[in-house]
Amino acid sequence: MNTIPHRIYLREDQIPRQWYNLRADMKEKPDPLLNPGTGKPVTLEELTPVFCEELARQELDNETRWIDIPEPVLDFYRMFRPSPLIRAYALEKYLGTPARIYYKFEGNNTSGSHKLNSAAAQAYYAKAQGLKGLTTETGAGQWGTALAEACSFFGLPLTVYMVKCSYEQKPFRKSVIQTFDADIIPSPSDTTNAGRAILAEHPDTTGSLGCAISEAVEKAVSTPGYRYVLGSVLNQVLLHQSIVGLESKIAMEEIGEYPDVVIGCAGGGSNLGGLIAPFMQDKLTGKANPEIIAVEPASCPSFTRGKYAYDFCDTGKITPLARMYTLGSGFIPSASHAGGLRYHGMAPILSKLYHDGYMTAISVNQTSVFEAATLFAKQETILPAPESAHAIRGAIDMALQCKETGEAKTILFGLTGTGYFDMTAYNAFLDGTMSNQIPTDEELAEGLKGLPQIPGIQ
Amino acid sequence: MNTIPHRIYLREDQIPRQWYNLRADMKEKPDPLLNPGTGKPVTLEELTPVFCEELARQELDNETRWIDIPEPVLDFYRMFRPSPLIRAYALEKYLGTPARIYYKFEGNNTSGSHKLNSAAAQAYYAKAQGLKGLTTETGAGQWGTALAEACSFFGLPLTVYMVKCSYEQKPFRKSVIQTFDADIIPSPSDTTNAGRAILAEHPDTTGSLGCAISEAVEKAVSTPGYRYVLGSVLNQVLLHQSIVGLESKIAMEEIGEYPDVVIGCAGGGSNLGGLIAPFMQDKLTGKANPEIIAVEPASCPSFTRGKYAYDFCDTGKITPLARMYTLGSGFIPSASHAGGLRYHGMAPILSKLYHDGYMTAISVNQTSVFEAATLFAKQETILPAPESAHAIRGAIDMALQCKETGEAKTILFGLTGTGYFDMTAYNAFLDGTMSNQIPTDEELAEGLKGLPQIPGIQ
Repeated sequence: MNTIPHRIYLREDQIPRQWYNLRADMKEKPDPLLNPGTGKPVTLEELTPVFCEELARQELDNETRWIDIPEPVLDFYRMFRPSPLIRAYALEKYLGTPARIYYKFEGNNTSGSHKLNSAAAQAYYAKAQGLKGLTTETGAGQWGTALAEACSFFGLPLTVYMVKCSYEQKPFRKSVIQTFDADIIPSPSDTTNAGRAILAEHPDTTGSLGCAISEAVEKAVSTPGYRYVLGSVLNQVLLHQSIVGLESKIAMEEIGEYPDVVIGCAGGGSNLGGLIAPFMQDKLTGKANPEIIAVEPASCPSFTRGKYAYDFCDTGKITPLARMYTLGSGFIPSASHAGGLRYHGMAPILSKLYHDGYMTAISVNQTSVFEAATLFAKQETILPAPESAHAIRGAIDMALQCKETGEAKTILFGLTGTGYFDMTAYNAFLDGTMSNQIPTDEELAEGLKGLPQIPGIQ
Repeated sequence: MNTIPHRIYLREDQIPRQWYNLRADMKEKPDPLLNPGTGKPVTLEELTPVFCEELARQELDNETRWIDIPEPVLDFYRMFRPSPLIRAYALEKYLGTPARIYYKFEGNNTSGSHKLNSAAAQAYYAKAQGLKGLTTETGAGQWGTALAEACSFFGLPLTVYMVKCSYEQKPFRKSVIQTFDADIIPSPSDTTNAGRAILAEHPDTTGSLGCAISEAVEKAVSTPGYRYVLGSVLNQVLLHQSIVGLESKIAMEEIGEYPDVVIGCAGGGSNLGGLIAPFMQDKLTGKANPEIIAVEPASCPSFTRGKYAYDFCDTGKITPLARMYTLGSGFIPSASHAGGLRYHGMAPILSKLYHDGYMTAISVNQTSVFEAATLFAKQETILPAPESAHAIRGAIDMALQCKETGEAKTILFGLTGTGYFDMTAYNAFLDGTMSNQIPTDEELAEGLKGLPQIPGIQ
């Protein structure tokens, strides 16, 4: 029997009681969100008609290092946390690597991913503020599921705008969301001006995340007592997701380990930002110097081929501007099967850290991701989400490098979720019809043409 | 914060290293399997051409109380066990019951259920015997998934005959099984005599579990080095599943609890037999007297309306005869959404214990099961499998009884799995099209007409 157990579960009383706000330890802060009309930093007053008050405060708070997790959120966390830190003994053995591979597995809850960590917080704050309901959009469906679960638990009505093609292609995701009593509307819809305008122009459109965001925001600001919430990109979301990294670090300390390398998949950045938070803190404060690697799809390479610039967070161009690595808010990534990573930008916090050299990024092809996913499933008996499998690919490649060099590195990666609702993608891989669609330089240049021009800034 | 944590995880070194064989403590043993040709008890020699040797031995072993779990199986268990024992605080609060409700959750693995416990053992023994491959059948698909995972891990080819209508209605189950490299064949097929005969007579048939069993057995006995394995009903399966009850009992001891009531859903009996094993031991040996309740679907009421008699384990009538509560091997239950509970008989061990008064059984309607399932999902944030939701129904009803009487009973139930592949059923419930189909007395009498006549026995 191995000295280090396969699965390390913290005790319930070891669950962190505070989120960690990475911005507090960044000497150079992420650039502020800008009002696209004025070009000036957005204020709390500008945010609160759209966002819940406490969440808006968290969004703008660059200083408070530790933020108490409200007791009702902790109570909710206790239903699915702590999540296990798992030693990948079988994978290590199969690869023949001297590396020690650990992964933090966030998929063992009904939302199927880490998204529930922020959903719980956002639903709670909305309820505590006395709001009447929330709206959001969902693409792949994990965020919509997580928020539906949290809203159901806290007794808050929720309307989810689901991109129409996902709504039709993933009827089971829709059903899970409905089981938790949320209203789910295929977008574009006739419930908003934005939706009606698009339907009038393109009656056969299958929708887009940009359009769904526009509808969800419009619905929120036009319904008394409603607010809009988002599952990634924002500072507040990364704050809530810090629970992932904090638990990982405590669990590693329990077994006398510390990662040489931390690897996460990167779409909007919610998982990556949460996983790396306390390790990045060590890096920022000079306590340790782990290598931190983002793995993104080659089909949507915001870190590795994007531009660090102010851009809209949505394709509808109604949100504040964020300075981030972006492919342009009009960039339409190819129909990758990792729907959760098909975002044109990257969380401003991570963008700043990447820009300042605190982390690196690689991009990987879809087919190599699914090779890693199926290998992992067979060795570790967990069927990963396509998004998560990007991190698996990164970890396997690092472990194989170690095999060549003989280095016994300690690798930690984030296994964000399970792939039960992604079997269409697995099918495409198994039957050999999956392809790798990598944007050309011309396509990327085209996407960046639409970046907003802000006098005095860019 | 509560004194008893929400989730109790044993340490890895607390995972039991032996399975518990309930038969050893039964003063009156279950009646032996009979050879349908001779009417005599089947021998090891008769079983080993179909079953793996060690499994055949376990099937016939009524005496050995504790059986060592082989180290490679323990290693496999360590990838997904121990499973959590969860205190249903939110459900208790919602119900306003003085009862304390615990559930053992077996769904946090890719098979989505407890089936992996026996699949790991069966695949390992087959590999250790040097077999070339295995065959099995699957209806709902959880057993097929579990066995595919285990066979993939131990490097053993597997052919799964999946009932054709399931194969077509649950394409994602099929894909998961294929991800683990198993061959999957819709049944009836042209790969066996049994399949060809049925196709010749009924070219449009959507298949049945009975036919799939016939095909899987034929394929096993006609392929050199292959054997057939089964995921429920058999003594060996209940033996492997004892890990569920053993872990539950240790976890409850850790928090100073012992169940007044143990509740499990009952189809073939694999989960129920495993969950109750150590508590039934206490009952058989006079150490304690917990109430033990089986919950079965009203559409397939083998305990509550069946006959205790010798019958075939399959509708194809090619297996040995088992004495059990049965509705007749020709009984076709209505198209209930809890596919895993649509079995005409009940494990011989459980049948004997029920017959001898050591446990009780209730039957519940499908719609009331889904009411319980959605209520549970919203309170406890886990989306249960329809099968598991039968136990939830039983536990909720018991907790509501406690509310009336004021008794603070300790309730333990088995939450066998998750419902991610059962959203069609949830849809039917949500849109109000789900019905309760309960067999009439005449239909049950018709089913029992086909019971085999065995001279001198029945």
